[in-house]
Parts: sequence; structure tokens; C-alpha cells
Amino acid sequence: MPKIEPRTLQGFFDYSGEEMSLRRSVEDKIRSVFVSYGYEELNTPSIEYADILFGKYGEEEKLIYHFNDHGDRHVALRYDQTVPLARFVAQNYNTLTFPFKRYEIGRVWRADAARKARKREFMQCDVDILGDNSSLADAEILMITMDVFKKLEIDLKLHVSDRKILSQILEKEGVKTEWLTNIVHAIDKYDKIGQDGVLTELEERFEDKKTQDICKKATLKVFELASKSFNEFRKCFELENSFLVEIFDFLQNTNFKEGRDYTFNLTLVRGLDYYTGMVFEARKDDYKASFAGGGRYDNLSAMYTDKNISGVGVGIGFEPIITFLKENSKLQEEANKVLVTVFDLKYATNSIKICEKLRNSGIICELFTDYSQKIGKQFKYADKKDIKKVVIIGEDEAKNNTYTLKDLSSGQQETLNLKDLIKKLSVAK
Amino acid sequence: MPKIEPRTLQGFFDYSGEEMSLRRSVEDKIRSVFVSYGYEELNTPSIEYADILFGKYGEEEKLIYHFNDHGDRHVALRYDQTVPLARFVAQNYNTLTFPFKRYEIGRVWRADAARKARKREFMQCDVDILGDNSSLADAEILMITMDVFKKLEIDLKLHVSDRKILSQILEKEGVKTEWLTNIVHAIDKYDKIGQDGVLTELEERFEDKKTQDICKKATLKVFELASKSFNEFRKCFELENSFLVEIFDFLQNTNFKEGRDYTFNLTLVRGLDYYTGMVFEARKDDYKASFAGGGRYDNLSAMYTDKNISGVGVGIGFEPIITFLKENSKLQEEANKVLVTVFDLKYATNSIKICEKLRNSGIICELFTDYSQKIGKQFKYADKKDIKKVVIIGEDEAKNNTYTLKDLSSGQQETLNLKDLIKKLSVAK
Repeated sequence: MPKIEPRTLQGFFDYSGEEMSLRRSVEDKIRSVFVSYGYEELNTPSIEYADILFGKYGEEEKLIYHFNDHGDRHVALRYDQTVPLARFVAQNYNTLTFPFKRYEIGRVWRADAARKARKREFMQCDVDILGDNSSLADAEILMITMDVFKKLEIDLKLHVSDRKILSQILEKEGVKTEWLTNIVHAIDKYDKIGQDGVLTELEERFEDKKTQDICKKATLKVFELASKSFNEFRKCFELENSFLVEIFDFLQNTNFKEGRDYTFNLTLVRGLDYYTGMVFEARKDDYKASFAGGGRYDNLSAMYTDKNISGVGVGIGFEPIITFLKENSKLQEEANKVLVTVFDLKYATNSIKICEKLRNSGIICELFTDYSQKIGKQFKYADKKDIKKVVIIGEDEAKNNTYTLKDLSSGQQETLNLKDLIKKLSVAK
Repeated sequence: MPKIEPRTLQGFFDYSGEEMSLRRSVEDKIRSVFVSYGYEELNTPSIEYADILFGKYGEEEKLIYHFNDHGDRHVALRYDQTVPLARFVAQNYNTLTFPFKRYEIGRVWRADAARKARKREFMQCDVDILGDNSSLADAEILMITMDVFKKLEIDLKLHVSDRKILSQILEKEGVKTEWLTNIVHAIDKYDKIGQDGVLTELEERFEDKKTQDICKKATLKVFELASKSFNEFRKCFELENSFLVEIFDFLQNTNFKEGRDYTFNLTLVRGLDYYTGMVFEARKDDYKASFAGGGRYDNLSAMYTDKNISGVGVGIGFEPIITFLKENSKLQEEANKVLVTVFDLKYATNSIKICEKLRNSGIICELFTDYSQKIGKQFKYADKKDIKKVVIIGEDEAKNNTYTLKDLSSGQQETLNLKDLIKKLSVAK
């Protein structure tokens, strides 16, 4: 029979071995933080009616996977977890308890250009608080984000701002409302193109020389203020009804430190069309990718309901985290597994029994089931799989009710009774 | 703006609240058993080239979701996790270490008839050992399955057989090889239609009276043997090179007991076209659905490679388990969460700080962020969310560095210092 070539689609990947352990460990850690804050999990379907997803992502919507199903319904694969959340909340508005605090960790699909070497299937990890207009909700989302990176042992900083403040400053400096979008888009590029780049960009964006000058002056004022700590900043600039003051006040009373864990960054704009209040991003100096981003938004479910549901949330960048950890070979899972070999079919039962006992003591324990293979081959298998501890039960051990524990790193071995074996392996964990 | 009706596709579901906690808890338990046996995780893509999936599922393949993607490639959604495993192993044959022990827990999609009230998106939980021909591998798969249900506290039995033995018996009773498929299909229905039903079925399947009689006599012999324990059975019937003897010998030396945890069931056929050796199903008396099924198969990757890769595995029926647990209201997660209220904006900082401390002590702790709501409303929220323990910090508590812990079930409350609060809440978990 002619064979079909075993292959995967571009942008789609198998995860196995060490990479999968890393992914599992990161997912578990992120989840554990979400859970520790009492958020409940929501799982939405991978496939939705197409009209639920289209009309939400602007230009990007051309990347949505969509097709007609067996019943000729136009359906689409989940592009993110936020639109399904909006749909869910609108659909269940009357039975949900607000504030609704939920997290979702799952796969999403985007038919991104392959030349960008982008993943077309990837994980998203989101937490949101819906129906809660307090600044404490914003502060909590920032705390969760910082706790996630603390748990992951990734040293980075949250850059926090509020687009409303940026607008206030620009308007006080004479910028007209109709210029705001253009000037803010230019400021948004500050991290990439620097101060001079932004000023050049303004010349391109505005034709009129006088307008250019007002915008440049206002922008320079923004850059001046942007270098300050939030405490200095609020002394220089009188904020009108700003949530950001409350948010920073709350954060000051936590274990997180301004400067070290979070910082005010007036030039942060992010998601202009979506966020309506506080915005933030998790950034690492000298590292291009953003590790997380979020903020406050109004009217999440406007497409589906008249109810005004505001919220605040964060998307933790699962794939950027994995990329970073792989590059920095951090978080390699310790191989804390034990391999129990089968010396001979005669002693297989002894091997089975010790496995049961070790597992009951919480030790991860693999039995080498293919007893036709010689013990040397079994050691080789352990070695390839990076398993350091191997248990051997031969004639003597079976007779004396003992177990030989071999350390493949050092080559040393010792013969132990059950109690000592369990003790030894529990410590090794 | 006209609103889009927020709705989900038939066969696709949102999971939230208690149902989601149940699903998460079941997934975690299944995973923990797989991990304890040292299996590594594999995650395969949700979307594959269509030709990878088609031609593998017979009649059923019409249920595969498939479409042309943005690059006009014909692609399909994962129908199960076994075909992707076969593809993965063929694709990575040269770099994999065998025996390859892997598990995968993930979503699959089937465009099943909605009238069957079937889920079109559901979870599968599979473990397999590939490239291991030993009976000990079969025994291990059975042990894993039993351990999963022990962990889930679902009392059921594995029904274990080997289709080869059934054929041997039938052939010794005079059944010709060409009749086997038909007679075995009839025997397979025993559980549903009983002995008389099977005999009637044989009359329908075979026209010739003489053939009918041979088949009926052979079938009655099968039923006679089927009622025996495996030990009695092997005394009555001489097995030719049967793995099943070795498998049962191994199991006899474990903590699992024949009759209680597993049983020989000669009438079990299951997946005729796929399995080539031992087959089994997890069944509960008086309950129609099967909770798990598996067996030994040859040549998993034949479509993709000339390498002969045999294996043995099990699919744990995640959705039947959830259905059963919901019906029997078992495994309802204890609400071990604490709600920390915010009495007044003045004391919000105290509430934030105690949350940090409780979380650091491993206590799941939700902060009521919307401090504009009165304390009574906050209690009501806890009540709706089934949170029994509530922490209150008002003027007195803030002054004295104490915390009032209210039990919403009993209505009782007590004022505690930090140490006692943590102690109390840790015990409550």
C-alpha cells in the first residue's frame, strides 16, 4: 500500500518530551496562581457560530479559521478567549453572579502568515473580572500578573498606564481631540523607534507645521513626565478623577515594589480600540516580546446585549514565556522519576509490587514492562529518558526482600530494604 | 446596533461553575495516575492534513470536521488522539526511545447526529505503550485503568478477554474461519440482547440450518465457559500461546482482586477491526455506558510507515465519567475557598494584605474587589458562590490587628489573630 507521508501542517506542532514537561509545568503554575485568587474556570467551545466571532477583530478577522459544517452552518474556530467570554456572559447574564471572576486556559487558532514563523495554534491564559468597576479590581489583576511571573521565576516589570491620562496631558498642552489618535499612535512606537523616531513620525502624520509644533511640544512634555516615578508624576500633574492613583496606592501596600515589579509608563498605549482605562504590559528589559498584557475595558458584550458589562483582565503570554524559558534553559524539569527494571520474568511480580508501593508513597515510578530486554538495555533506556534512579530486583534481592538502587549519574548502587528505599527516593524528589 | 444572538452550536458546550470544577478535578485525577506510572505527555495539533485522518475510521469518517484552509490545503479537526499518535510515531520513529509510553488528554471533534444528543466536542484521555510486545505491558495498562477508577472512587470492573481465544474455542467447536466475523458480531451483543437474543441473531446471520446448529452449539459452549473465573476457565480449556494467562498471572500479584476489580469475560469482543489481542472494557453493573476501553493492537502506523509498531492502550471515557458523577452527585468539590470582604475603602489595604498572607499559606482566597458594595451584598455573593468562610476587617479589627472569621453555614463568627486565622482556615481545607 502506498504510504501517506506523516507530517504536520505549518504552524502546528507536536509537543513531547522535555518541551511538553516545560509546557505542562508552566500551565500548572499559571493555573495555580489564578486558582489561589479564587477565580473559577470557564471552558468555552473551540467552535462557534461564525457571526459570534466576525466583526470583532477588525483587519485581523481575515485570520479566523472558518468553514461550513455538516449542517451547512457557517462556523469558526476560536480566535481568542475574550470574544467567547463576551458571548458567554451575554448568554448567561441572568444566572451569573457578578462580579464574575473567571480564568480560561486553552488553545486558539489564527491563520497567520507562515513566513512570520508564527504558531497557528497556540495557548492563551486569561483572567478577567467582569461587572466590577472598582480600582481594586484593576489592582488585583496587576497583582495576579506579578504573582504569575514570580511563580515562574521570570524577573520582569509591569509597565502601567492609563490612556485617559495621556489624553489629558496632551489636551492640556493644546492638542485637539481630533489629533489624539494620530499622536497616540506615534507615541505608542516610542519603545521601538525612540524619541527622535516619534518626532519624525509626527511630521509625517501631520501636514500643518503649526499642528506639528504643538504635537511635538506636547509629546516632549509626555516624555519628560514619562521618566518619573508615579509619585513624582502625580506631584507634577494634577490628575482628574484618575483610577490610576487608587491603583498605585493599593499596590504600594502589597509585597510588590514600584520600580522593581511595576512601573508607571506614560508612553504605553496598547490596544487603542479595545481598552478604555488602565492598560499594562509585562516587559523585560532588553527583550523584545511582551510577556503579558491587559487592562480595563467597557461594554465587553455590546455586540450581543444591551447590558453594559465592564471588566478588567490580563492575557498571560504562554508562548512567549515558553520561548523565553527555552532560550534561557530555565525551569528544566528535574527528572525525578524512578525506573523499576525487570531482571527476569521470574522476578517481574516483585517489580510490579514495588512499583505499587512506591506509587502509594507518591513516587513517580515507571516499570520497564518489556521484560524480554536485557538489563543493560533497560539501563540504556533510563539513560536516554534522563532517568537517574533505577531499581533492580534479581535473585538475591527477591530472596532477601531487598532492592538495589542504582544511581546512573554516579554509577553507585546500594541494596536497601523497603523502608530505606522509599525514604531515599522521597528525598531524591 | 442590531444585536447578534449570543448562542452556542448544538453539541458544543460552555463549562463553568460546579460542572467545570468537577471536570477539572476528574482531569487532574486521571492525569495524576498516568503521571505516577511515569508516562510522558504528548500534545498533538487540533488540525491535521485531511489525508492523515481520512481512511482510518471506516464508515465513521463522515463525521470528521474538514475544510480548506487559507492556503487551500484540505485540513481536518482531530477525530481522536490515536491516529495523531500513529502519525507522530511514524514521523519521529528514528528519534523516539521505545518502549514509548505516552498519555494525551485533549479535545476531539465529531460531527455526530444532534438527535443522539451527543457532544460534538469532547475530551479524550488516552495512555498507550508502543513498541513493547510483552504481556506485562498489557497488565500495566489494565492496572492504570483500575487505578484511575480507584482514584475517582468509581466502583466498577474491567471485563477482560482476548479475541484470539474466542476464535480458538469456536474453531474447536467446528466453526469455520469464514463464519467467525458473523458469529463474533452476534456474541458481541450478548450484554444487550442476552443468550436467547444471540441465538436468534445467529439464525438471522446464517441461512443454512446445519451451519446455524454448529454456530449455536459453539456459542452455547462459549457462554458456558464465559461464566467461569479465569482460573476455572484455563483448567477447562487448553489455551494456545495465550498472553492472557500471563496477564492474569501478573494481575494476581497486585493489590487488585479478580472478581472485585477485574473479571474474565469471554463474550467481550470490542473493536473487531482494530484490536488484535487482549481487549477490555470498564463496566459497572446495571449501568449502560462503558467507562473505558482498550486493548492490544498491531501495526498502529501502517498507513504512514513500513515499521511495524505494535502497542497496547486504553481510552478513559472522560464524558461518561462526568455524566455518571453528575447523576450520582459524587465528587462535588468542597467549597474550600475563603472570601475576604472589604468593609470600607479605608480598610481595603488590610484586606489585600491578609489575602497575600493567606495565599502564601496555601489557602485559596478571593478578595471582594468591588468595595462599593455593602458588606451584606458581599455575604450574599459568598452565599451564591457557595463560599462558607468569610473574613471581615472593620475598624476594630484594623486597630487590633485581628480578623473576624464568619461561618456562613452556622452564622457564627469569631475574632482571631493572624496565626489562629491561618490555622483555622488550613484545617477547614
